[in-house]
Amino acid sequence: MKSALQAYVDGFNSGDPAAVTSLFADDAVVADPVGNPPIEGRAAIDEFYTGAVGAGAKLSLDAPIRGSHGDRAAMAFSVHMPGMRIRVIDIMTFGDDGRIVRMEAHWGPGDVES
Amino acid sequence: MKSALQAYVDGFNSGDPAAVTSLFADDAVVADPVGNPPIEGRAAIDEFYTGAVGAGAKLSLDAPIRGSHGDRAAMAFSVHMPGMRIRVIDIMTFGDDGRIVRMEAHWGPGDVES
Repeated sequence: MKSALQAYVDGFNSGDPAAVTSLFADDAVVADPVGNPPIEGRAAIDEFYTGAVGAGAKLSLDAPIRGSHGDRAAMAFSVHMPGMRIRVIDIMTFGDDGRIVRMEAHWGPGDVES
Repeated sequence: MKSALQAYVDGFNSGDPAAVTSLFADDAVVADPVGNPPIEGRAAIDEFYTGAVGAGAKLSLDAPIRGSHGDRAAMAFSVHMPGMRIRVIDIMTFGDDGRIVRMEAHWGPGDVES
């Protein structure tokens, strides 16, 4: 699970949205940010990450990736865009096949720096 | 919500379990670590935190506390015990009255350093 989260970061930083979306199950749910309506399914996930990676977002870990005693891994990181930094904590839940079935991104208006 | 998480950290570090448990609703659920059976309710929560704070656990933030666009806040931190460090990410969900109704601590065996 930690390897998948590292691959997620690496996919952003190499500008490769397919490397990111391939980590997700076809029926995965992505809540980014938590509190807004989530997106669901392959087409929506492909569109979301193609847009985010295409916009030039780069990710840097703020601390080592955490595992769990269950089916989740977690990471604190920063999203860097031109003139903007967003501090985020992602929680990823994994299915039995090792793909992400749920992603929840925790950040609020106060976590955006310009 | 971020103030509550900072108060949680401060309660540990000042050795005051009541300062920690007062942040929780009476019927709150605590999953620490995620993947093990959670505990629930005032008596179990009081016992859990009295034990943890009494054991001398101190917390240090690894990165600024995150909010959300919803009812959650999140933090990456380390638990310091004599001869041990555990790297954790907590997600706290809040009720309408501002008290924590659910705490989920993400850490696995690989996040413990001796």
